Amino acid sequence: MTSSPDQAPVVADLSETELIASFAPLLPRGRATLVPTGDDAAVVAAPDGRFVVSTDVLVEGHHFRRDWGTARDVGARAAAQNLADIAAMGALPTSMVVGLVLPPTTPVAWLLDLARGLAEECAPLGVGVDGGDLSAGERVVVAVTVHGDLEGRAPVLRSGARPGHVLAHAGALGRAAAGYAVLEAGLPYTGDPDTAAVVGAFLRPAPPYAAGPQAADAGATAMMDVSDGLVRDAGRMARASGVEILLDPVAEALAPDLARLEPVARRLGADAAAWLLTGGEDHGLLATFAPDRPLPPGFRRIGTVRAAGPAGPRVVPSPADAAHVTAPGWDHFRA
Amino acid sequence: MTSSPDQAPVVADLSETELIASFAPLLPRGRATLVPTGDDAAVVAAPDGRFVVSTDVLVEGHHFRRDWGTARDVGARAAAQNLADIAAMGALPTSMVVGLVLPPTTPVAWLLDLARGLAEECAPLGVGVDGGDLSAGERVVVAVTVHGDLEGRAPVLRSGARPGHVLAHAGALGRAAAGYAVLEAGLPYTGDPDTAAVVGAFLRPAPPYAAGPQAADAGATAMMDVSDGLVRDAGRMARASGVEILLDPVAEALAPDLARLEPVARRLGADAAAWLLTGGEDHGLLATFAPDRPLPPGFRRIGTVRAAGPAGPRVVPSPADAAHVTAPGWDHFRA
Repeated sequence: MTSSPDQAPVVADLSETELIASFAPLLPRGRATLVPTGDDAAVVAAPDGRFVVSTDVLVEGHHFRRDWGTARDVGARAAAQNLADIAAMGALPTSMVVGLVLPPTTPVAWLLDLARGLAEECAPLGVGVDGGDLSAGERVVVAVTVHGDLEGRAPVLRSGARPGHVLAHAGALGRAAAGYAVLEAGLPYTGDPDTAAVVGAFLRPAPPYAAGPQAADAGATAMMDVSDGLVRDAGRMARASGVEILLDPVAEALAPDLARLEPVARRLGADAAAWLLTGGEDHGLLATFAPDRPLPPGFRRIGTVRAAGPAGPRVVPSPADAAHVTAPGWDHFRA
Repeated sequence: MTSSPDQAPVVADLSETELIASFAPLLPRGRATLVPTGDDAAVVAAPDGRFVVSTDVLVEGHHFRRDWGTARDVGARAAAQNLADIAAMGALPTSMVVGLVLPPTTPVAWLLDLARGLAEECAPLGVGVDGGDLSAGERVVVAVTVHGDLEGRAPVLRSGARPGHVLAHAGALGRAAAGYAVLEAGLPYTGDPDTAAVVGAFLRPAPPYAAGPQAADAGATAMMDVSDGLVRDAGRMARASGVEILLDPVAEALAPDLARLEPVARRLGADAAAWLLTGGEDHGLLATFAPDRPLPPGFRRIGTVRAAGPAGPRVVPSPADAAHVTAPGWDHFRA
């Protein structure tokens, strides 16, 4: 131990083996885990002979700030945004591996809390944290790869939206963006329930995991998670499908969401409808369904699909909302 | 474009969509790829109802330096060290996903070369680069997750070494450590074939991928890749198996390897035997076999397994080599 006894230990005080021994017991084994973490690789069940895989990286100072929330929040959020990608294919998440870059001065307690956050999001879903890697670096980086089981379903891609289909959404919209705006403005939030709730939505998004496989079973023709904002992600779906997607006016389609965001928007002098249309990181599910199909639980109709016009495949917000769509969504390098 | 026309473009000059469009065509689709990169997640075949998964992170300034080698080297090395983990389970690698953190000032050409390096290592093995994520950050981070197919085999774990078994190794030992020492010393190397070869071994390790499944088929009882040095990794195998592992004298068991390293060691005033015993990053395969079994192609006997003594499970270098084992191997946080 290089730290004095009265200081909290940092990761440089422990060997890699000691660090792994300290957090490995906190990580859940999943229902599909055959050989867990600890060998060169883990072995995971893929009962239908396929697996779904997605990866996402969170970088300190870009995707999270250590002074904005706890390490549990960072772990839960890193897990949630990846698990949402699996749900968006119509699959059940089964297994996760996590690559971590940590500055040597990171408190060991922060690392353990990160592991607890990962576990809090994974364990209730039966997802194992089945492997990982630890490295030193200047900033914390959390690189998560998550796997899922389609249970025999066909994967639901972004490219299946067809003219006449209904566009629907499950989960939150605009709430993480509102929370981010509160934190960035340094606005006190613990005393105000509306404000505290959106900060919580940013620090710990709650994707509607079960809605993914349910949507697939209900005949979803296209699906994706909304990570970069409704307008930007619906635009991606439109281009992948070669269609035009028309969004309904948010004041009608998303009236309750708008009403819940407005008190926070007023405190900040911000635009609640813009959060709904362009705010990312809530990781709800955007899907299309044939018009004769009832929407599965949790989904709300927010638009329609029609053939692409002379302008080509694109998303078209309601004319009533045009003034709220100024930024098309997040770009990691140009934000 | 924010750069002037006579400057090479950097990643901040392109949108994330443009960047992805620029490198995606360079990435191979694998023989197991069912739905490639471009959706929320990829879908990969797992014919025997299981998959093997491992993850590793490379951090600029810790695992590589951009002024030491090309981006192709970085990409190939990131792929190789992960693919070796799959081979070490006795599996065939099938699919990779890559999370990238890039400073906004990274030349686009560097990113494209990184993709080429990944492809050069993956394509000959039929491995697809099936997904990824791009984020901005202060230093380059390459987070690779790789998957493999056991083709019906039982995974070969670290924990199967039993008293009486033979310890064997396939691939290079000490060469990457020698190359690292050359680069760190700033020694010129292009004019000297021995020195250039070890630098090449550090920049682009060449794990014996095929030897992994072959060892499994030949009855390997334990296996792992040597990423942190022979003594340290054999110690891990000993502890996982609850045995003592005795290493043969390197001057006998690894005489040709020693002879090839000695000219470089002399130039640096370094210890070639220490590179063999404690140098990591060559990603050869360490395996144990029952004594009555012939070793599969590429494996050389380098030690024996016996029951753990009063000191408990451990690795014991030959008494002839004790003076060469000063550092037990790499620790990411305390090195």
